[in-house]
Amino acid sequence: MDYNATTPLEPEVLQAVSTALQDAWGNPSSNHIAGATAKAIIYQSRQSVARMVGGKAEDIIFTSGGTEANNLVLHTAVEYFQKNCGAAEQGEGLQNGCRGLPHIITSNIEHDSIQQVASHLQKEGKAEVTFVPVSRVSGCIEVEDVIAAVRPNTCLISVMLANNETGVIMPLQEICQRVKFLNKQRERLRILLHTDAAQALGKIPVDVQELGVDYLTIVGHKFYAPRIGALFVNGPGSRTPLYPMLFGGGQERNFRPGTENTPMIAGLGKASELVTLNLSEYSSHMQSIKLYLEEQMESVFRDKIRFNNRFPGSDILPNTINMSILGPTLQGWRVLSTCRRLLASVGAACHSASGNRPSHILLSCGVPTEVAANALRVSVGRGTTKAEVDAVVEDLRETVQLLEEMN
Amino acid sequence: MDYNATTPLEPEVLQAVSTALQDAWGNPSSNHIAGATAKAIIYQSRQSVARMVGGKAEDIIFTSGGTEANNLVLHTAVEYFQKNCGAAEQGEGLQNGCRGLPHIITSNIEHDSIQQVASHLQKEGKAEVTFVPVSRVSGCIEVEDVIAAVRPNTCLISVMLANNETGVIMPLQEICQRVKFLNKQRERLRILLHTDAAQALGKIPVDVQELGVDYLTIVGHKFYAPRIGALFVNGPGSRTPLYPMLFGGGQERNFRPGTENTPMIAGLGKASELVTLNLSEYSSHMQSIKLYLEEQMESVFRDKIRFNNRFPGSDILPNTINMSILGPTLQGWRVLSTCRRLLASVGAACHSASGNRPSHILLSCGVPTEVAANALRVSVGRGTTKAEVDAVVEDLRETVQLLEEMN
Repeated sequence: MDYNATTPLEPEVLQAVSTALQDAWGNPSSNHIAGATAKAIIYQSRQSVARMVGGKAEDIIFTSGGTEANNLVLHTAVEYFQKNCGAAEQGEGLQNGCRGLPHIITSNIEHDSIQQVASHLQKEGKAEVTFVPVSRVSGCIEVEDVIAAVRPNTCLISVMLANNETGVIMPLQEICQRVKFLNKQRERLRILLHTDAAQALGKIPVDVQELGVDYLTIVGHKFYAPRIGALFVNGPGSRTPLYPMLFGGGQERNFRPGTENTPMIAGLGKASELVTLNLSEYSSHMQSIKLYLEEQMESVFRDKIRFNNRFPGSDILPNTINMSILGPTLQGWRVLSTCRRLLASVGAACHSASGNRPSHILLSCGVPTEVAANALRVSVGRGTTKAEVDAVVEDLRETVQLLEEMN
Repeated sequence: MDYNATTPLEPEVLQAVSTALQDAWGNPSSNHIAGATAKAIIYQSRQSVARMVGGKAEDIIFTSGGTEANNLVLHTAVEYFQKNCGAAEQGEGLQNGCRGLPHIITSNIEHDSIQQVASHLQKEGKAEVTFVPVSRVSGCIEVEDVIAAVRPNTCLISVMLANNETGVIMPLQEICQRVKFLNKQRERLRILLHTDAAQALGKIPVDVQELGVDYLTIVGHKFYAPRIGALFVNGPGSRTPLYPMLFGGGQERNFRPGTENTPMIAGLGKASELVTLNLSEYSSHMQSIKLYLEEQMESVFRDKIRFNNRFPGSDILPNTINMSILGPTLQGWRVLSTCRRLLASVGAACHSASGNRPSHILLSCGVPTEVAANALRVSVGRGTTKAEVDAVVEDLRETVQLLEEMN
């Protein structure tokens, strides 16, 4: 029950990957039939991915994954500022706010592939960054806080669509509406809008036009697709700037060169199709399993159970539970390493090496330290059954009994 | 016969990828058994890749492909110069040659993923670049020309191990020996040594210690592995600098974060094992098929055939033929688009969109324009048979007859 860390491939996706591995191994840039076969698959996938997020095929840039897509957005924002700032300094100067360093606004609970990039830019003196703290009541970023953080040199707002540990869904639509209003008063340096939708896709409806974002990060392995990603860009290089980080053979219209990973792209396309077709079914199944799990946990653990992601007024992903079983010996890592069947996590998988410290995300959301230390992130999947839930709850019951007796 | 563009997967490699897709889909960073399974596969692959090039497992950084690996090296060289230059300016200054911009030396026949990066850095005013021309007699870079190009601010020499269009093998060992001697006289700004071994691996022996390089680019899909790559770095971050381009969840010891592409890494490992085991067999098979093809072409086309990659004194990859059938209507693109069976190319696949212009690589190697215009790059593979060669030669004979009659 760690499906926020990664997911298996759906059988149809596995089939698409396998078929492409065997039959479409040609270089998509080759001028012969082997190249054309691969190229056609890539085009079809691009359409499927675009359809999933409500965009156009030409707005999809395939990347190696979410980390690269997120890095590409921040890289672009800095370059965009520099190119526009250079022009403005010669012309109207300060009026456009184009002095000093580019300013980036993000939240304090982003994934490392945003947070670490922003911190690096800050440390290297290449950008100013505001990490807007989420509300300790709602676990959610407040639109007013984002708007209040805007400066004349702000060039990017990047806020995740749903948090990976709490599942809290962020008010991207409202942020984008407010910022678009601000952008009308800005002649040269428009504020670019990005959301990392890694945890949202395949769980809730995601539509780039409804949201109003310029960029949206797509991560295959979170929605039963392979380890590859894509970046939606609303008119890359035309309506929306996109500056490549890599240079080479011209693939992805020079925005992201490198011989295309055809089989993985085929899998991403097939998985996107499945999301477009079956989202409401996936979503309602996960929601019902989640509710069942919460009920069972409450009936077994009663006043010892705390749900760390029940925030007043916040919407939560249908598959994500963050809970703590209270007790001095029931730290999340201890519980999980004692459980015989439950595979879950105490936070983001990429933080697993940081060991036993409570999640900074939960602390930022106002969860008390001693509760956060016991947190279990349990994320259910498309195929999770009530029988599995029963087994997991029993596993936790036995584990807690054992750990309390050992005390 | 376009195996320099890309290769299919060996059956064992396909099996390794498929097995990992199904059984090792866990997030390698997860602290539970699903993570551990994936992590173990990645470690084993790292060892296999390292063994193929004569390095250590900890010297292998997995990347999304060759383009990313090459970009990472040039990015590192610039950062390395800047970090050392800042230190030197405060201290000993000019003595270390740390003034101005970083200087990069490369050849004029590199793959776009080096050439375009270098040109971009040059254009943006971030580096000086010398594109050392290869000899128009040998098709090969001359060691003396490389050494003569060294300046006090030179921080990187990047020369491909074998050219993708001519198959000419470059004198990397000699270049490295000479530069290491120069480096002894340099206190702070050592010249880093890189080779892009994309076309060499799986065709000729490649050993990082024998070559003496600091970095070596590995590209899976050129040696029957999937679309993924790796960079060998001789002691990344310790003996040899490595500055990440991406920031995120800490994977690949922070040098290249992003959730690992376990199945593709598994395939890369298996393909590396096969190269380590069977290189001489692969190589001698390709060499004999290549010789047979050359003989058959000569016997059919006689004085109308020119081999563009027979250079005096130069060693050539065992699988690569670059040839022109002389005649005013026999341009490479025309011949290939008329052939009914032969799938080959007129040059690098990523240049296929540039259409009918003769290859700049052949022109740089001294091939006359009218001969270069007719060039066919024919690259044979591990499984190419004499019967296929016979079919291709017959195909070419019919094609040439047709095109000459149409004239």
